[in-house]
Amino acid sequence: MKILRVNMSDETPSAKFEELGEYEGFGGRALTSAIISKEVDPLCHPLSADNKFVIAGGLLSGTAAAMSGRISVGCKSPLTGGIKEANAGGQAAQVMGKLGIAAIVLEGKPKTDDTYKIFINKEGVKIEKDNSLKMLSNYDLVQKMRSQYGDKIACISIGPAGDMKMSAASVAITDMEGRPTRHCGRGGVGAVLASKGVKVIVLDDTGTLPRQPKDPEAFKDANKRFVAGLQKHPVTGQGLPAYGTNVLTNIINEVGAYPTYNFKDGKFAGARKISGEVQAELEKQRGGNPTHGCHRGCVIRCSGIYHDKDGNYLTKQPEYETVWAFGGNCGIDDIDKIAMMDFLCDNYGLDTIEIGAAIGVAMEAGLIKWGDADGVINLIHEIGKGTYLGRIIGNGAAFTAKAFGVERVPVVKGQAIPAYDPRAVQGIGVTYATSPMGADHTAGYSIALNVLKTGGFVDPLKPEGQVELSRNLQIATAFIDSTGMCLFIAFALLDQPETNQALIDMINAFYGWNMKDSDVMEYGKKVLKFERDFNARAGFTKQHDRLPRFFYKEPISPHNVVFMVKDEELDQLFNW
Amino acid sequence: MKILRVNMSDETPSAKFEELGEYEGFGGRALTSAIISKEVDPLCHPLSADNKFVIAGGLLSGTAAAMSGRISVGCKSPLTGGIKEANAGGQAAQVMGKLGIAAIVLEGKPKTDDTYKIFINKEGVKIEKDNSLKMLSNYDLVQKMRSQYGDKIACISIGPAGDMKMSAASVAITDMEGRPTRHCGRGGVGAVLASKGVKVIVLDDTGTLPRQPKDPEAFKDANKRFVAGLQKHPVTGQGLPAYGTNVLTNIINEVGAYPTYNFKDGKFAGARKISGEVQAELEKQRGGNPTHGCHRGCVIRCSGIYHDKDGNYLTKQPEYETVWAFGGNCGIDDIDKIAMMDFLCDNYGLDTIEIGAAIGVAMEAGLIKWGDADGVINLIHEIGKGTYLGRIIGNGAAFTAKAFGVERVPVVKGQAIPAYDPRAVQGIGVTYATSPMGADHTAGYSIALNVLKTGGFVDPLKPEGQVELSRNLQIATAFIDSTGMCLFIAFALLDQPETNQALIDMINAFYGWNMKDSDVMEYGKKVLKFERDFNARAGFTKQHDRLPRFFYKEPISPHNVVFMVKDEELDQLFNW
Repeated sequence: MKILRVNMSDETPSAKFEELGEYEGFGGRALTSAIISKEVDPLCHPLSADNKFVIAGGLLSGTAAAMSGRISVGCKSPLTGGIKEANAGGQAAQVMGKLGIAAIVLEGKPKTDDTYKIFINKEGVKIEKDNSLKMLSNYDLVQKMRSQYGDKIACISIGPAGDMKMSAASVAITDMEGRPTRHCGRGGVGAVLASKGVKVIVLDDTGTLPRQPKDPEAFKDANKRFVAGLQKHPVTGQGLPAYGTNVLTNIINEVGAYPTYNFKDGKFAGARKISGEVQAELEKQRGGNPTHGCHRGCVIRCSGIYHDKDGNYLTKQPEYETVWAFGGNCGIDDIDKIAMMDFLCDNYGLDTIEIGAAIGVAMEAGLIKWGDADGVINLIHEIGKGTYLGRIIGNGAAFTAKAFGVERVPVVKGQAIPAYDPRAVQGIGVTYATSPMGADHTAGYSIALNVLKTGGFVDPLKPEGQVELSRNLQIATAFIDSTGMCLFIAFALLDQPETNQALIDMINAFYGWNMKDSDVMEYGKKVLKFERDFNARAGFTKQHDRLPRFFYKEPISPHNVVFMVKDEELDQLFNW
Repeated sequence: MKILRVNMSDETPSAKFEELGEYEGFGGRALTSAIISKEVDPLCHPLSADNKFVIAGGLLSGTAAAMSGRISVGCKSPLTGGIKEANAGGQAAQVMGKLGIAAIVLEGKPKTDDTYKIFINKEGVKIEKDNSLKMLSNYDLVQKMRSQYGDKIACISIGPAGDMKMSAASVAITDMEGRPTRHCGRGGVGAVLASKGVKVIVLDDTGTLPRQPKDPEAFKDANKRFVAGLQKHPVTGQGLPAYGTNVLTNIINEVGAYPTYNFKDGKFAGARKISGEVQAELEKQRGGNPTHGCHRGCVIRCSGIYHDKDGNYLTKQPEYETVWAFGGNCGIDDIDKIAMMDFLCDNYGLDTIEIGAAIGVAMEAGLIKWGDADGVINLIHEIGKGTYLGRIIGNGAAFTAKAFGVERVPVVKGQAIPAYDPRAVQGIGVTYATSPMGADHTAGYSIALNVLKTGGFVDPLKPEGQVELSRNLQIATAFIDSTGMCLFIAFALLDQPETNQALIDMINAFYGWNMKDSDVMEYGKKVLKFERDFNARAGFTKQHDRLPRFFYKEPISPHNVVFMVKDEELDQLFNW
């Protein structure tokens, strides 16, 4: 495996392959965070030539391992000002792995306003100026690439939101059908890719083979046990395949942790109408598909295909957090309209969480009314067109709040808080507050224990035990995000020691390592240390590891609780 | 002297007078910064009920001391996120002093969207709801107040930019003619006053007397020596009275420190056309007035009255930094158009430096062309009307840069860098980087020594000695800002030890104190300590005491220099 470095500052941008060197043994988030932390000036402007944009598959990407299709992108974030890793499914990680590329590192930036595409196959790398791509939406762009390079490609791309360097711009990854539906969503990563002058990276693994393990038999055996474990567990074997992540709407609403009307209430009257159960039923009725994998090797198959009333493709099955962001958060209970919003965000290249939160703030400012679905669709079009209003909303929740003088801003480190109220689930509040990524549910998904009772139970309404819970999850997650594995394997890992062992066995068999459980935790700690260290050098302090003050002051119904974990406890999270 | 506390959270807002207590001996900036640092949660949202808005005249305001008309306002800044003190001339400080009020502290915020006015005279305080005042411009508002309360009032008010809670909103103070032309400009203080539901504070000192010194004879004698010293010094006795602050345009341009086209060049071809010399000549020709004081007791008289081509009042004489912000910074060399921009900013209630910098950034983004004066006037109207574009520009340079994806953002701690390039004058760069206020030339005006050679000379193009220079000036300034004295007395203080002594004698005579030169420095250090302490608790670190990276990388012509003061040296500034 090699690192591909592309220098975009040169008049004719050039690419060169390098050995992994000091980055040997790193994959996914470990690799992006190590490179950013070691190579990027923490005080540089995120859109400057001094920032870098790193794309890395995980340790097992491109192998025959199930679930190993996650791709990480990393940079200094224009949204948070800190280090950022965002990951997604889709095909790119596997294709990159098969091409022998551990990471693509985009450096510098063009002196002109030109737009480039990068094509990579087993023959090498071509970097071409193509200003006809500017401001293309993701679906149009990918279609154009397929017409040029054939149907077997995987694309990593930005939509117009990226072109316009908005802080909610995502990086799109094509899925199994070649559609740009899987997004490295958070932190404005799309703006950084755009600042490098790169619109799309096209990957073609034609003629390549999966990466070969050191011990093929042991690897095969471990993979088999791993898959069996996932299929056995009720979450990964039943809930997620049947209803996708949106199975959570009814669950989270039921426990009163469903942030409604910009975090004013913990329950949404219209939740059932936008639930995964309703969504899956519609998908079946209309010829879509509620049970589908977003990448080769997926055995959970939590993604899906959403058709409109006429039975035509509308979008991929919207994720729970997307349905929440435009649903309860904006007071909207029309699942078809929400699916349209999902499509538009994918097409323009936008983080649905950040945009839903920004629109919730705009609703609080009175810009449009709660529940006005057509108003929301219009606002997303404003973003895509880059109107002045669009440039406000497209820069996220904190930006929108400042533009309209709104005081209740649900962000940590500038990034919007997602779909689980930190008062009704105190553990996730700890993760929001302390993650080096800013508010990010995936960074330490306490919902697993606080609500779903996988791997144990920690009472979500009490402050006790939440810091330890979040710490352990953040460490384990930093490791999983480095393997290329989908985070959803964690449910089975938490409950079934033998499935956890199967994953470790698989990695050991592939690399010839001798990792133990404790090594996994050390690996995760190392990743977090890179990230925390970068952030400290960028000026982050313990004061940045706090929730917005209103979560400490406004109790949320129905439990009538505020966030109660003490500052001094939060400050112990990284003292392991 | 009393503190007047107004609780705006009550359904019927109430006011009460308190003894100074622990704040005894504090005035102006010392008083605002002490109250904010001791009483405000550093992590509160700047627009929340937990922030406070403090208005304080100086130690000598309301006395017969010459030059003692500065008024300070303080709060947590919505622009920087740190502590903020902004001060201005005008009549309010003297009137407040005569009313026996050391500080007005606005606390809490109304639960409704109602707008209040506060009237204070020797009989007491009236707080009245008056929603007819909403969105009035400063000139209209003040006119309305004069029709209600008579011509002898002084007003402290916000324009529409404040109503809309923009981060470049100023607080206007009426001048000797009762016009809203003196502004506490920086840091978005107008947005915080607005968040308290207060549109205007009307002060009437009818029937009051100046504050009486402990030792009237010694006070009178010291004041006499003080005034004589100011009149003797060439800057305060000749340059400033003749041409106002805009005398600097030719000087700063000549030394190549005049930031042009958003800090791309150090000289502006059109500088002479917008210089103080040209301005003063026009004022004379058209029946304006180039030599005028902004407050009772001013003997420097650097302000002025600017008439339009037809001889009608257009605005007060624009200050150097305003002329620069819209002049060289935006490539505009039409002084009449710049005067119109000055008027519009006063009327809408905007910081001219922040807005000029924001428009420079917008020009870099291609929104309008360099030098397009009518385009700039139109943009300022957009702010006043609160269009979406106006809400972008009205939130300042960093906000505008983010909206349009611009990387070259001339701000420190979120606040726009003013009219002196930190590469061509390295001492002012140190002040920009390290001041707790964000980029602020007045916080430690190294230009005095680096360029004007008052009080000595430190080579502006070399890094040596700049930290010590800035340190001493920042400490001395923190003291002067606490006395109520206009900062321009500093030129005479630096060059003439007897004038410096006269000021100390005057304070000692007034209060019966026994202050020495060393006490003055201790006083200044105490103020800076309050401010630094607040900022540290708000999450500021040494990484926030840096200039934007491009000042370290892009040399500026004609001297072809970058900012060279080392980080480690900057970090020593507050180690006294």
